[in-house]
Amino acid sequence: MSRQSNRATDSKKMNSELFTLTYGALVTQLCKDYENDEEVNKQLDKMGYNIGVRLIEDFLARSSVGRCHDFRETADVIAKIAFKMYLGITPSVTNWSPAGDEFSLILESNPLVDFVELPDNHSNLVYSNLLCGVLRGALEMVQMAVDVRFTQDTLRGDNVTEIRMKFIKRIEENLPAGDE
Amino acid sequence: MSRQSNRATDSKKMNSELFTLTYGALVTQLCKDYENDEEVNKQLDKMGYNIGVRLIEDFLARSSVGRCHDFRETADVIAKIAFKMYLGITPSVTNWSPAGDEFSLILESNPLVDFVELPDNHSNLVYSNLLCGVLRGALEMVQMAVDVRFTQDTLRGDNVTEIRMKFIKRIEENLPAGDE
Repeated sequence: MSRQSNRATDSKKMNSELFTLTYGALVTQLCKDYENDEEVNKQLDKMGYNIGVRLIEDFLARSSVGRCHDFRETADVIAKIAFKMYLGITPSVTNWSPAGDEFSLILESNPLVDFVELPDNHSNLVYSNLLCGVLRGALEMVQMAVDVRFTQDTLRGDNVTEIRMKFIKRIEENLPAGDE
Repeated sequence: MSRQSNRATDSKKMNSELFTLTYGALVTQLCKDYENDEEVNKQLDKMGYNIGVRLIEDFLARSSVGRCHDFRETADVIAKIAFKMYLGITPSVTNWSPAGDEFSLILESNPLVDFVELPDNHSNLVYSNLLCGVLRGALEMVQMAVDVRFTQDTLRGDNVTEIRMKFIKRIEENLPAGDE
């Protein structure tokens, strides 16, 4: 389903609860459709990826953010602008690797899980895994290959939710054939 | 998946685009899962119903709206408070039936369809049908049986999106057994 062009910047601000419950319906549907949690996690990541590659255009248009100079700047833009814009929260950026190629986003609260408790028979479900896909897809569109995964989750009894992001490589922009 | 009790009123305000794209992923998944559009419409309505019966509690807590005295008041609360809160838009309330038991919500824009064009092979899909279910479910929890359906849709080339709501009956609150 393709994009309409007349959206401009007329964004609607909404409370998160309808989104939260709709996301729950999506996860529940996938749990019905797929054999096991691992497969559901994979589908959520894939859906998120497809969302991310489209959302980035909206993000760049609204935020007026330019090209980031390093991964630290990228981390700040994600936490302070992107998460704030699309989820209404501002995670903190911590746990940098010495090489500066890995960091964690710490979510004190995660709007996606506001109404949720994991049933016992879904102990391997990464409920919010869509977010990893969104981040991966969006960053790929700005030439960054990044590994994204949950390392802590309040749904599993952790005190916070932690998303670990690892820079893999800069993706070369494809040059038109014959331009080399 | 059951509800947590510690949410209080710390609602997050978010832009609608991530919700819009996530809803698109849900509809796309249902189109894969079910044989025909009519079945998808039914599932969206059912999911919406389940969302509505949970969302109403959040709504009543946040809005401090009390019991409505008539259907006109209900219409205003839905349009001016509920839609504004959860979708960031304020539909107009029009086309009252002479008996005052039917009205239309006119949505100048519908955030659910911001990125969407219906493919030709889904001509019977009521893309935003989740909303009908949400309204039906939420109202049922405040003892109103209401018929809700789309009668115009910008996705089908109409100038506006119109949701028609018809009051059916007041649902008697169940009295505890032996209390009559």
